[in-house]
Amino acid sequence: MKRTSRDIRTANRYGVLRQIIARSPVSRQELAAATGLSLATVATLVGELLDLGMLTEVGFEDSAGGRPRGLVGVNASGGALIGVDIAETYVRVELFDLALRVLARAGEDLRPGGSRPEQVVGHVVSAVGSVVTQAGAGGARVLGVGVSVPGQVDREAGVSEYAPNWDWHDVPLLALLAEHLAYPLYLDNPLRACAVAELWFGAARGRGDAVVVNLGTGVGAGLLLGGALHRGVGNSAGEWGHTTLVLDGRPCHCGNHGCVETYVGAPGIMLNLREASPGSALLHPEDQTATIDALARAVAARDPVATAVLRDTARYLGAAVADLVNLLNPEVVVLSSWVAAALGEPLLHEVREAVARYALKRPLAGTEIVLSPIPTDPVCLGAATFALEGALAPAGPRPADGTAGGTAGGWFVRASSNPLPKR
Amino acid sequence: MKRTSRDIRTANRYGVLRQIIARSPVSRQELAAATGLSLATVATLVGELLDLGMLTEVGFEDSAGGRPRGLVGVNASGGALIGVDIAETYVRVELFDLALRVLARAGEDLRPGGSRPEQVVGHVVSAVGSVVTQAGAGGARVLGVGVSVPGQVDREAGVSEYAPNWDWHDVPLLALLAEHLAYPLYLDNPLRACAVAELWFGAARGRGDAVVVNLGTGVGAGLLLGGALHRGVGNSAGEWGHTTLVLDGRPCHCGNHGCVETYVGAPGIMLNLREASPGSALLHPEDQTATIDALARAVAARDPVATAVLRDTARYLGAAVADLVNLLNPEVVVLSSWVAAALGEPLLHEVREAVARYALKRPLAGTEIVLSPIPTDPVCLGAATFALEGALAPAGPRPADGTAGGTAGGWFVRASSNPLPKR
Repeated sequence: MKRTSRDIRTANRYGVLRQIIARSPVSRQELAAATGLSLATVATLVGELLDLGMLTEVGFEDSAGGRPRGLVGVNASGGALIGVDIAETYVRVELFDLALRVLARAGEDLRPGGSRPEQVVGHVVSAVGSVVTQAGAGGARVLGVGVSVPGQVDREAGVSEYAPNWDWHDVPLLALLAEHLAYPLYLDNPLRACAVAELWFGAARGRGDAVVVNLGTGVGAGLLLGGALHRGVGNSAGEWGHTTLVLDGRPCHCGNHGCVETYVGAPGIMLNLREASPGSALLHPEDQTATIDALARAVAARDPVATAVLRDTARYLGAAVADLVNLLNPEVVVLSSWVAAALGEPLLHEVREAVARYALKRPLAGTEIVLSPIPTDPVCLGAATFALEGALAPAGPRPADGTAGGTAGGWFVRASSNPLPKR
Repeated sequence: MKRTSRDIRTANRYGVLRQIIARSPVSRQELAAATGLSLATVATLVGELLDLGMLTEVGFEDSAGGRPRGLVGVNASGGALIGVDIAETYVRVELFDLALRVLARAGEDLRPGGSRPEQVVGHVVSAVGSVVTQAGAGGARVLGVGVSVPGQVDREAGVSEYAPNWDWHDVPLLALLAEHLAYPLYLDNPLRACAVAELWFGAARGRGDAVVVNLGTGVGAGLLLGGALHRGVGNSAGEWGHTTLVLDGRPCHCGNHGCVETYVGAPGIMLNLREASPGSALLHPEDQTATIDALARAVAARDPVATAVLRDTARYLGAAVADLVNLLNPEVVVLSSWVAAALGEPLLHEVREAVARYALKRPLAGTEIVLSPIPTDPVCLGAATFALEGALAPAGPRPADGTAGGTAGGWFVRASSNPLPKR
């Protein structure tokens, strides 16, 4: 309820930079019109971003005979941001410039049984080292590393509270990473990472209310309400995957029954396939990615079993997306993450038809349903965006001596005695 | 996404007045501390509210040897507000002073078949006349009338778009009322009225994120996120009653199956009772109120059928409230409206137990579940609050000649040629 003037200043900084990234190069006058802020406020915010080295002056535009207007743009080389996507089946790391263009990539698949915290930390450290090396000695200063891990996280403490698919409990992930990485670290989860990626760079940009439906092994819904991520009192908002779709339905690892996730997460889709055709050749029992890819290819080839499974999945998904439409009345619902990307347009088509059957007509009339337009891994991009937001937050009381400590903006650590190996 | 400086000014006015109502008399310094606004901003806002006649200076307090601090309080007699609760089974009207204390009440039950728009308008006009007459010739100027009607409403056009229990479609309710009432009129629905009542005067005051679960004939959830009502792109957010709890479950009048409302709305509870005990004496087939009241009395008397029906209802309600907890992670869930008031503490107890079984542990740990503490009809109070908010909105471009027209703040009409009958 208390929205301090500092919160407002931070939100305005984000809003102005978001518009600059979208429109670069752009005049302060255009930014004032696009954000609804006064020209004086915009000029102050642009000045701060110039001081932070995030923008550059890039010339002038004619203004119909008046004084030429100064244009600003993103200072792409003003710093680098790293996004880390820890998923149930892989670790992926990308290094971005300040315009959030990918400069380097690294990653590895996780084998079943290879998901103990120290194993995952090893993969992340190695991949971060790889992208920094690829970006080269001339690469810009790394402003921060955003890390996304499935499940519930305490972002301020840097702790993975509960990752259900791995049965992680209270893993101090950022502290483990800080033994190896000396950059500011930021933790959150994939549903919120996908959401901020859409807010800054995708289908939610400029929309008042949007929901980003994250379809992977687990599923969730990033809620972008009033132009900002809704986190809830304990940063756990968005657990749509664990809302009840079928009371007393399929058992879920969360302990409940009939959760949305058990019907539309990758393992749920595999179960839909198994129920439709127990011996299907599409099914790779130990490999979610291979199964979803096989299903997508079979749908494209008009295989009747695959088509039936897609429809069945879309029916569950449509009913659960209709719940979001009825409850939240968003302008746009974005289908994101790897399962949505793999099943693509055919899934979108079936989901739109199913939502139309389940949602109330009037809320639905105002809602668009789209696939994520982000061409790269939205979780890496969103995780890097958390690092960007951290770098933009007005300087708070960071521990002066560099000792470990959580802040609202990020997690800052003493330069490690065990530095990143140079290769 | 665009939050203009005018929106912020309006939100700050609401925030300051809300604190004054809660703490009256109060100093500007305390208000600054309570709202997080600067003292200068608070002083400006208090000055505006004094100019509007909504506050009075009420003396000074000692400030530990410093200059005495001026105290302000609500100017209770500065105006009157009227709240109209049109429900499926009754019309209730209350007249409030500016401290939102009830000065007069009127209302009538609606008989089945007595819910045509012109019949309902007649009941409202008559009851408004009654409360104005009761308040007397010395009564304060009526600043506005807030009207709550079930279902989906277009508040700017003043139209009841769809009231499912009556099958109303696009009824121009405010235009019909404006033929009789010359006050500024504001339209919304009960789930949002209950929500703003809790935000201003009840269990959501001072909470960042709250959900107000409205249990009546229909059910819904008013979403108070970031200290303000979440409306959605088309003002239809909160249709939790039409989210799916049991895929392919009970048929709902909305055309879907298995909606939450079909299990926990008053007719749904009657069906739970009929399923448990087809010939139960508790059941008054044509009278929801009598049935719910009989159920409440039988629960108090430890009747085993009534207890089983309460548990069954609480199980459905618990699963559906757990969905809100998991998705939105609110600080508080408030059970409101007449069914919640009638079933009271026994319902609350069973719902808390059920939510604990269905919700994820961590979000639940941060969420309190309570009965509405508002002792009067929360829908009337909330509807009157919409009128208060309208009176507080900075003066916009109202039609200068007083002709009918919708504004963001309210609906203003030409003084009627058919004035309120004086009795």
